Amino acid sequence: MARIVCFGEILLRLSAPGRELLLQTPTLQTHVGGAEANVAVSLARFGHDARMVSFLPDNTLGESARGELRRHGVETTFVEHAAGRMGLYFLTPGAGQRAADIIYDRTASAFANIPATDWRAALNGADWLHISGITPALNATTTDATLGAMQAARAAGVKVSFDSNFRAKLWEARGDDPRPTLNALFADADLLFAEARDIGLATGERAANADEAAAIAFKRYPNLQRIASTTRTIVSADHNDLGGVMHTRTTATRSPARAVIGIVDRIGGGDAFAAGLLHGLVTGSTEQHALDFAVAAAALKHYIPGDFNLATVADVDFFLSNSGSDVRR
Amino acid sequence: MARIVCFGEILLRLSAPGRELLLQTPTLQTHVGGAEANVAVSLARFGHDARMVSFLPDNTLGESARGELRRHGVETTFVEHAAGRMGLYFLTPGAGQRAADIIYDRTASAFANIPATDWRAALNGADWLHISGITPALNATTTDATLGAMQAARAAGVKVSFDSNFRAKLWEARGDDPRPTLNALFADADLLFAEARDIGLATGERAANADEAAAIAFKRYPNLQRIASTTRTIVSADHNDLGGVMHTRTTATRSPARAVIGIVDRIGGGDAFAAGLLHGLVTGSTEQHALDFAVAAAALKHYIPGDFNLATVADVDFFLSNSGSDVRR
Amino acid sequence: MARIVCFGEILLRLSAPGRELLLQTPTLQTHVGGAEANVAVSLARFGHDARMVSFLPDNTLGESARGELRRHGVETTFVEHAAGRMGLYFLTPGAGQRAADIIYDRTASAFANIPATDWRAALNGADWLHISGITPALNATTTDATLGAMQAARAAGVKVSFDSNFRAKLWEARGDDPRPTLNALFADADLLFAEARDIGLATGERAANADEAAAIAFKRYPNLQRIASTTRTIVSADHNDLGGVMHTRTTATRSPARAVIGIVDRIGGGDAFAAGLLHGLVTGSTEQHALDFAVAAAALKHYIPGDFNLATVADVDFFLSNSGSDVRR
Amino acid sequence: MARIVCFGEILLRLSAPGRELLLQTPTLQTHVGGAEANVAVSLARFGHDARMVSFLPDNTLGESARGELRRHGVETTFVEHAAGRMGLYFLTPGAGQRAADIIYDRTASAFANIPATDWRAALNGADWLHISGITPALNATTTDATLGAMQAARAAGVKVSFDSNFRAKLWEARGDDPRPTLNALFADADLLFAEARDIGLATGERAANADEAAAIAFKRYPNLQRIASTTRTIVSADHNDLGGVMHTRTTATRSPARAVIGIVDRIGGGDAFAAGLLHGLVTGSTEQHALDFAVAAAALKHYIPGDFNLATVADVDFFLSNSGSDVRR
Amino acid sequence: MARIVCFGEILLRLSAPGRELLLQTPTLQTHVGGAEANVAVSLARFGHDARMVSFLPDNTLGESARGELRRHGVETTFVEHAAGRMGLYFLTPGAGQRAADIIYDRTASAFANIPATDWRAALNGADWLHISGITPALNATTTDATLGAMQAARAAGVKVSFDSNFRAKLWEARGDDPRPTLNALFADADLLFAEARDIGLATGERAANADEAAAIAFKRYPNLQRIASTTRTIVSADHNDLGGVMHTRTTATRSPARAVIGIVDRIGGGDAFAAGLLHGLVTGSTEQHALDFAVAAAALKHYIPGDFNLATVADVDFFLSNSGSDVRR
Amino acid sequence: MARIVCFGEILLRLSAPGRELLLQTPTLQTHVGGAEANVAVSLARFGHDARMVSFLPDNTLGESARGELRRHGVETTFVEHAAGRMGLYFLTPGAGQRAADIIYDRTASAFANIPATDWRAALNGADWLHISGITPALNATTTDATLGAMQAARAAGVKVSFDSNFRAKLWEARGDDPRPTLNALFADADLLFAEARDIGLATGERAANADEAAAIAFKRYPNLQRIASTTRTIVSADHNDLGGVMHTRTTATRSPARAVIGIVDRIGGGDAFAAGLLHGLVTGSTEQHALDFAVAAAALKHYIPGDFNLATVADVDFFLSNSGSDVRR
Repeated sequence: MARIVCFGEILLRLSAPGRELLLQTPTLQTHVGGAEANVAVSLARFGHDARMVSFLPDNTLGESARGELRRHGVETTFVEHAAGRMGLYFLTPGAGQRAADIIYDRTASAFANIPATDWRAALNGADWLHISGITPALNATTTDATLGAMQAARAAGVKVSFDSNFRAKLWEARGDDPRPTLNALFADADLLFAEARDIGLATGERAANADEAAAIAFKRYPNLQRIASTTRTIVSADHNDLGGVMHTRTTATRSPARAVIGIVDRIGGGDAFAAGLLHGLVTGSTEQHALDFAVAAAALKHYIPGDFNLATVADVDFFLSNSGSDVRR
Repeated sequence: MARIVCFGEILLRLSAPGRELLLQTPTLQTHVGGAEANVAVSLARFGHDARMVSFLPDNTLGESARGELRRHGVETTFVEHAAGRMGLYFLTPGAGQRAADIIYDRTASAFANIPATDWRAALNGADWLHISGITPALNATTTDATLGAMQAARAAGVKVSFDSNFRAKLWEARGDDPRPTLNALFADADLLFAEARDIGLATGERAANADEAAAIAFKRYPNLQRIASTTRTIVSADHNDLGGVMHTRTTATRSPARAVIGIVDRIGGGDAFAAGLLHGLVTGSTEQHALDFAVAAAALKHYIPGDFNLATVADVDFFLSNSGSDVRR
Repeated sequence: MARIVCFGEILLRLSAPGRELLLQTPTLQTHVGGAEANVAVSLARFGHDARMVSFLPDNTLGESARGELRRHGVETTFVEHAAGRMGLYFLTPGAGQRAADIIYDRTASAFANIPATDWRAALNGADWLHISGITPALNATTTDATLGAMQAARAAGVKVSFDSNFRAKLWEARGDDPRPTLNALFADADLLFAEARDIGLATGERAANADEAAAIAFKRYPNLQRIASTTRTIVSADHNDLGGVMHTRTTATRSPARAVIGIVDRIGGGDAFAAGLLHGLVTGSTEQHALDFAVAAAALKHYIPGDFNLATVADVDFFLSNSGSDVRR
Repeated sequence: MARIVCFGEILLRLSAPGRELLLQTPTLQTHVGGAEANVAVSLARFGHDARMVSFLPDNTLGESARGELRRHGVETTFVEHAAGRMGLYFLTPGAGQRAADIIYDRTASAFANIPATDWRAALNGADWLHISGITPALNATTTDATLGAMQAARAAGVKVSFDSNFRAKLWEARGDDPRPTLNALFADADLLFAEARDIGLATGERAANADEAAAIAFKRYPNLQRIASTTRTIVSADHNDLGGVMHTRTTATRSPARAVIGIVDRIGGGDAFAAGLLHGLVTGSTEQHALDFAVAAAALKHYIPGDFNLATVADVDFFLSNSGSDVRR
Repeated sequence: MARIVCFGEILLRLSAPGRELLLQTPTLQTHVGGAEANVAVSLARFGHDARMVSFLPDNTLGESARGELRRHGVETTFVEHAAGRMGLYFLTPGAGQRAADIIYDRTASAFANIPATDWRAALNGADWLHISGITPALNATTTDATLGAMQAARAAGVKVSFDSNFRAKLWEARGDDPRPTLNALFADADLLFAEARDIGLATGERAANADEAAAIAFKRYPNLQRIASTTRTIVSADHNDLGGVMHTRTTATRSPARAVIGIVDRIGGGDAFAAGLLHGLVTGSTEQHALDFAVAAAALKHYIPGDFNLATVADVDFFLSNSGSDVRR
Repeated sequence: MARIVCFGEILLRLSAPGRELLLQTPTLQTHVGGAEANVAVSLARFGHDARMVSFLPDNTLGESARGELRRHGVETTFVEHAAGRMGLYFLTPGAGQRAADIIYDRTASAFANIPATDWRAALNGADWLHISGITPALNATTTDATLGAMQAARAAGVKVSFDSNFRAKLWEARGDDPRPTLNALFADADLLFAEARDIGLATGERAANADEAAAIAFKRYPNLQRIASTTRTIVSADHNDLGGVMHTRTTATRSPARAVIGIVDRIGGGDAFAAGLLHGLVTGSTEQHALDFAVAAAALKHYIPGDFNLATVADVDFFLSNSGSDVRR
């Protein structure tokens, strides 16, 4: 099993119960999330040594979030206290043709003004560093911290996995052009989770499809060894069709779309994919099996409430191999 | 924005939680409803000045119902106290091929023996009066009150919207022939929500479809300017196909059926349609947009728990324009 | 109405709420179940005189289970106290492509070491005795008790209904060859609920389909008058296609598969089928109606939370006759 | 164990959860109650053959209420269907100095217009008939039915237990003088549950205390053999002091008040006392033990949610004998 | 009835259910609160024309908070949208000797940077303006806004009620000396809710008790006509003793402490007192009745979940007059 | 901070919600518990390096229990998988004078047949080993395992803390005389949690009070350095008076009883005391402070739902120092 370090903000999700609208009745359900924390939890559930690097407020909310990571086996020694609020988001889950709705509430969070991290210690013994594009999008400090973390990893011989997770709204709110930053981030990644659109944005070269995008990116970013993404068709909030595609410098692998019907919780599907693929890579799977496993993990996540993919390797394997049972006795 | 007055009984719904049968477990969920109250709430959520005229018992149940209307922006100055019970209905929500089940419990309600209403005051400044066929079906007193309200509106230059909402069981329980009353009601309406079946019942002339029914009705009722209805195919309790049709004296407009899958709450869909159409009419939409908006509002209601369509104009517009997003961030 | 005696273990189900994983949140929902208890409750809800014969611990758990049977009209005079635990099972309900998961926890239960039953008294006035293959699979004592019960019934002129319900894991845990026991059990049944696979296992003769299996079984077991089973195609945990087939020595009847979409609770579907068929047989339905009723009862069960089919005869009849209503008012 | 027949209305209670106000949040908890049903359930839990005689609507609400009685072991063969509503009451539980609040909603219930009961059959084998003063207070029909039931019991040699349960509001609403009816009812009772105030009201003779009241009543009503009541001091909704007093024609027995602190549910305390005393009488307890048991049963009821006293004889005995344990392991 | 304008921040409370610790289980209960909103709701429930002046974010959280005020009858025309977050606070309710715990989370709220308010319009027709000391403590802008509001009221002949509600932590966080501001605020009040400690802080003159404090304040602040406060002894989180004291320039009135045991929700008790006293003053009660009513309202609030005192005048009157009933039927 | 190793069975508690009876409604709340696990969690919350040594089944129940320990910071490397069931207990929480009720359901658990533990590894770096008397009471294997663990600790220079926790029922069920085992266990302890009664049982010498018992024990057991216990007076399930007493060979320390009123959850109070005292000892507190801290921790536990004392050192310190605040802001 591998040691994988995840760096990013841990959020507390507050969501309406069942299929209700937010605050339609006076109850909220809480889950802990955040793109990189989701990856860490999934990897820990897969049996890896997953370490989280983050900052939380020194109060019950922060301690509770830390406890949830620990509960699922994530190592939290490098989750430190910092001044500021707990980052929150409010979720109205979708239903059928009614889309889900998210209100982010992360202003002035403990994570937003990142103090210096001792990356030498935090990366000690690590195989991979995983970061998403949300962290560098928050503000100039988090941009610098992200680039610093990636460079520290590269210097220490730790591979870098970067999920672009592009959020236009964050960059608009900040009033900055995301392209120089994206370029710098993509340049330091060994593994990039990105769609053609994101690669087009970073490089300024429009790609018609994943194959073209991969060609552009591999040319532009010499460190980059692998690009992967889910392929998703949204039929409704209850029904997506989900597949995947992965390129190395020499191969292209595809996992056909499967119907994901009766969705329970859509949040964190992409993070489950990233964790599934990292699992495949560090355990030496074939390209095809690694991608199939990642797509299956992402699909299975849609049937698990909350942001975390709580499935184990055995659960994903059963899911992949299941030919017609709807009850495991 | 317009002032629209809605007149009818406010009911308290008591329903089984989730997909349970009624009283399978000892918990009931409450919602406030009633056909005209549902229209009033939807119009208030759309930004209109919606006023409810009704009668409630002078106890916590009545006050709670009034509070729910007020919460959503309905003006309740003309919701008065009267002797009698709170009207109730017990709902077992449907699931898949298991149909929903309703037990009405409105005997001896505060609304059933309507005292005189000061319609001059209640209609002051109003653009529309909206009534449904449930109110006049209850008993002779409510029949007279309904006709009186419609005549007062007509005298005051307030347009009348009438949703036929025909319930055979109510008329059977009463032992009366509904036809003369329906005829009188249809004769006083400017806008009629009715299917061909209802028009056939009122006029005694059978119509093969909505077009023929419209022709019959426009000929019979000189005041009538517009007829509209949803078109609904019921696949299961979880899946309906929902469209709409609207006739003026010179035009016929259709909105194609859309699949409404993964239904959360079926009650109040027709009232959401009525409110959506009234919104379109008072805001000067085109015929097509008004009807599309009404159908979209009705469809969206199926994904919102309770009797009320809590969607805003922005929500319906997003629903109409959405091309593939299942999360609004 | 008939008197039908059901003999088997009563279990307490502990399941995760909604679509959650087991213990994801610290709440469990409880239901009472057990294959034969499920049949007894369904028959009592259909209006029959259903009597349960079983053993429960002398504590609150046992008393609560007895109370649930009584609540639905089952006679529990012959449910006796015995030393041992309450039999439990933990259920993670399935969702979409995520299969349900069951942890049985019936070690050392009060039922497992069955004391002698006064079958003469317990079968007094009975028309049928119903047993499933789970009871004889538990251990040698329960095997003997099952065969003893069936022989007592046969001696008293009470017909025997046997649902094979084959569970390979139980026999493996016991380390015994199930075939001699299955053979003995099948030999004493008048009505057998079994698929071709189960008949093949008992007889050692492989059958390609239900018709062949019926021919084999009727030849081998002279007492046997009727074989029935559901036909089920599992699309997902939310969607099964469900039909039925029934053979007598001279006839073969089929009920076409219907789509069961939006499944609420899959457990107990087979027991609902058995109860539905017994109802048809004791009320003198035609072969076709009895089978259609049984399939409809099984389908309807999928929309009712818990192990029990709580539908009444009126509910099943409405389900069979419903042509397009999703609300019963 | 004795056979005791209870005659009265079965009600469905709808109450706010926890310490909330009614409909403060949109959830209601349901319990089945009614003074005589409460007595029947308690007696059945004590192991007696308790039979309920009543009328319920032929719908899910009525069936559910019947099921709850059956669950706790009450025989419901003589609970018949009748036209009319389910009788309801809405409860806001009290808290501290905030008194509980009840809205009765029993207008036009199935019980209110009692059809003829076959008392010969219903009283077959009975030792006692138990009735409360609520039933005769409802209307003239129920007054006659109550007197008829008591006379049938007297004719059949069945002892009559009558709990006066005087509710001034019911008689005011009816516009009748309760005294002649109370007199007739008291005259037919063998056992009377009444306070001095009630005896004063029926006889027109004011009594300063329970001793004087007993003297008056025994003089006035020759059939009367025993009078009992709780003595209750209300400190707050959470704290009552509860004792009891019982008179025969020759003895006076008292049970000292015990502090009942941390009350969970106050409803049904008096009915638990009545059931406790009947248990003592039919099992041949001493006067003192019967009364102590009744007071203990009533006190214990205050710690059990709902209208029913679900305690067993063993629970009451433990309660009486407990000297300092707060956990039974 | 009077028109009373309340100006302050509206907060969303997120609290642990029952007696749990915050996030011990993943559910939060929501209530709307804020000192001045609490006063507005209580006054509206008492039948007054209560108007709220505030700022909320333009999202579902803000709309939901507005709806809750409206539900209870508060006029919200002057609750405007502003940029910023919804102000939150997280509550761990206390239990016994475990104190409640609050995490304020109001950084960067929509209310914190108050835009200009059209006070001429907002105060139109008003009898009183009510403000608490929390608003001016937030930052310099809210200090100015508070003083501006009070001066506008004074100019318009509207009386000013000021609840000092001193929170040392807010002033410490700001790094400012609160005394000049408190002085200015007290100087503009007609009615001051303050304890001796607060008056000592504002004036710099230490007072040994409420009488001395009143003398100091009346001398220092010529506009001040009345000072009132609760007197509270905290025994545990479940038990407070609560009384009140009120001074005019010529009179001193006391309401004796009553034991408030079995507390349900402590938050908002002081605001309930303020609303109760304002009710007494505007309805012309005697000094003693006004104070007794205010103390009773405050005590009753402790038995109502949430921040709002939902009691009506009838409820408080019943509470004051109740001599021994724990159930209102 | 110290490293403390706790060895014992981890149980899953299934309890009725609120003040309900077990299975009165079909919901159970789950908590993880077990005497030694409770100590481990409390110590981890106090900041110590707490390690659990135990055995759990290899299924979701076992994994969930492990996750709960990890969530609160307990190290679970030495919690191993073993064949067998998850140990359960069912709890009916008490209320007022109604005592709580526990049904243990630990037959055939994974812990009951303890495989060999590598104590050298498990005790590596440890300061203390903590065990309770429940483990050796289960069966001969667990007796041997307990003694083996204590001897391994003694050999490794790790101090031994033993909580006698005597449960007569366990020894009766086993049919063994507990005395020889108790003697052996007490002989190996450095710190003993025991009341006079337990010491009398082990030594056969009756002691009138804690002082005499301590004298007897110190004489009999040369290794023993310290004896401590709570002193508890049970007023009701809601109200205990709780103090403590501690003896060394030379000193006697007492902490006066404090009233613990409004108890939320009684389970685990003794374990909270043990953890509190261990905390005091390893942090070098005075005798008096260590005992006061332990009593305060135990008292505070009564206000926290579940078996675990989730309080931090800061929470206990606040509790000890709090002089009149019922809200921490």
